[in-house]
Amino acid sequence: MKPNISSIDRRTLLSTLALLPALSGLPLIASAQAQTAASGSALPSWNDGPAKQAIVDFVRVTTEQGSPNFVAPEERVATFDQDGTLWVEHPMYSQVVYCLDRVPDVVAKKPELKNVEPFKTVISGDREAMAKFTMKDLEMILAATLSGMSVDEFNVEARKWLETARDPRWKRPYTELIYQPMVEVLRYLRDNGYKTYIVTGGGQDFVRVYSERVYGIPPEQVVGTAGGTKYEYGKDGKPFLTKEPKLLLNDNNAGKPEGIHLMVGRRPYAAFGNSTGDREMLEWTGAGAGARLMMLLLHDDAIREYAYGPAAGLPDSKVGTFTPELYDEAKKKNWTVISMKNDWKRIFSF
Amino acid sequence: MKPNISSIDRRTLLSTLALLPALSGLPLIASAQAQTAASGSALPSWNDGPAKQAIVDFVRVTTEQGSPNFVAPEERVATFDQDGTLWVEHPMYSQVVYCLDRVPDVVAKKPELKNVEPFKTVISGDREAMAKFTMKDLEMILAATLSGMSVDEFNVEARKWLETARDPRWKRPYTELIYQPMVEVLRYLRDNGYKTYIVTGGGQDFVRVYSERVYGIPPEQVVGTAGGTKYEYGKDGKPFLTKEPKLLLNDNNAGKPEGIHLMVGRRPYAAFGNSTGDREMLEWTGAGAGARLMMLLLHDDAIREYAYGPAAGLPDSKVGTFTPELYDEAKKKNWTVISMKNDWKRIFSF
Repeated sequence: MKPNISSIDRRTLLSTLALLPALSGLPLIASAQAQTAASGSALPSWNDGPAKQAIVDFVRVTTEQGSPNFVAPEERVATFDQDGTLWVEHPMYSQVVYCLDRVPDVVAKKPELKNVEPFKTVISGDREAMAKFTMKDLEMILAATLSGMSVDEFNVEARKWLETARDPRWKRPYTELIYQPMVEVLRYLRDNGYKTYIVTGGGQDFVRVYSERVYGIPPEQVVGTAGGTKYEYGKDGKPFLTKEPKLLLNDNNAGKPEGIHLMVGRRPYAAFGNSTGDREMLEWTGAGAGARLMMLLLHDDAIREYAYGPAAGLPDSKVGTFTPELYDEAKKKNWTVISMKNDWKRIFSF
Repeated sequence: MKPNISSIDRRTLLSTLALLPALSGLPLIASAQAQTAASGSALPSWNDGPAKQAIVDFVRVTTEQGSPNFVAPEERVATFDQDGTLWVEHPMYSQVVYCLDRVPDVVAKKPELKNVEPFKTVISGDREAMAKFTMKDLEMILAATLSGMSVDEFNVEARKWLETARDPRWKRPYTELIYQPMVEVLRYLRDNGYKTYIVTGGGQDFVRVYSERVYGIPPEQVVGTAGGTKYEYGKDGKPFLTKEPKLLLNDNNAGKPEGIHLMVGRRPYAAFGNSTGDREMLEWTGAGAGARLMMLLLHDDAIREYAYGPAAGLPDSKVGTFTPELYDEAKKKNWTVISMKNDWKRIFSF
């Protein structure tokens, strides 16, 4: 059930057609080729192929005056999953690493947790045991490390960690492990009047700390898993917001279209994801009228990044569950699969 | 305990200073006067006075290059309550009228509600009895009329009602009962790089139906009381969102700063309200560093609109509870009170 990710047939067809730009009856293809040339500078990290072509065609048909699929500027919304779509998620979500790193601080403030699982294991530093944590264990760690402080304190802590923490493989800040080709897509869409949103299963407050600096996406355009806050007064009478452990929005799966409705109130015209957690967002996008762009990133580059999910014959890997079923739905609904290995000239800016 | 709304002392002082523009030591005032002249065209429905001056001064000190209180363009956020701040809320919130008008439709679909209160009273048409509804009655009506349909169906229904319903006093669509001076403030702030948000206790989905057309505020900049939605599939396999009776955000009082944090992730530099429901939003705004603008609209114009709250000697009126305590807090914290009667040349555009 390993999917055919090279899409040779479609690419061959497109290349053949591209050799015939002067033929009447093919004005659309000819125009697309012209646009591709023009956008060569906009998407320099992309190889020519169906994925790049799908992006360029979508921008053209939705922004060209007189196009039957023209989208009014205020309606131009594009949504991007983050983990595994805009930056590296393997072998562990950066935010989970952050939470694990914060456990010693939390335990120092609440010593009663020291002998309670899963905190005990985290303190022991036993990475193998941590790799076996259940969702329930992780939820306990997230609740303990992401709530109970003020919003301002949280921002300071998260910023400090992001500046100092390093990915063990690349020895760089996590915020440098963003995919250069996707940064180019974000910019290309914005240059064509699209508002770009992050719609992430990760913590909304966490991603907002760096989204503007790293992706050019302001905090008000980050939709993520969000907890409640509580408005309180300090001893000086000054109000502050405290992060509560109460979950308001679980921004995964069906939570993604629900979160987009809550925070944006418009249906996206383009949506990018990489796993089953993004399925409903892509379905919701594709169910709208007119031209829509739905793309899934396949991690099939074991050398430059990682290969997991169906590309590695791992139908149910722990992260980025790009399942064979999702691949089938993508084919059926004409969603475009991006092959990291074939479609990207380079992965990172460094 | 009736507040002194004319602020004669401050106004006299400003006028006197304005006569001395050439004196050294008063460059700030001179510059403010110049700006006032320039903004004369931006705020034509405002009388000169401390309220108009506060708005113009705020814009100047936060947008002039080199000003110690300069605010970076991406940080420029201004939030506006809606009911009683941007449009008429008296004698009943328009959205409540909408919900009451929808009851016959709901009862036609669920006949078992016909003999159940408060629906029975609504069907009877007894306005006096309806005026005595408790919060619990209203909540039952809101839950029954605002949920259980798809988001798309809701939008169609609400739009239809807004086009046909008329306010009994002015015989006009509710969306024409917006305050022209506030429309000018919205535009003036936007022209100076501010992103304007509605932060309303009213229903987020309801306000989003008309906010762009009526206020120039797009749906993604409307924060309101919000219920959950549920992602489902129709018989044709197409997904849709259904409005659920579950409350996600009660966007009143402390819910306003909490909602702003959730939906915007930035602290406003300017906030406008008219009742105790806006108190925390104004406090939260004022607790930020630098120049901030906090304004409260006082309904003291019984002839052109309504007089209620402290202006009418009604400290605990049903709507728009601009209490004496709120007035005291405003004075103590240098929030500016807008007198509808004295500060506004006209109320509506018609």
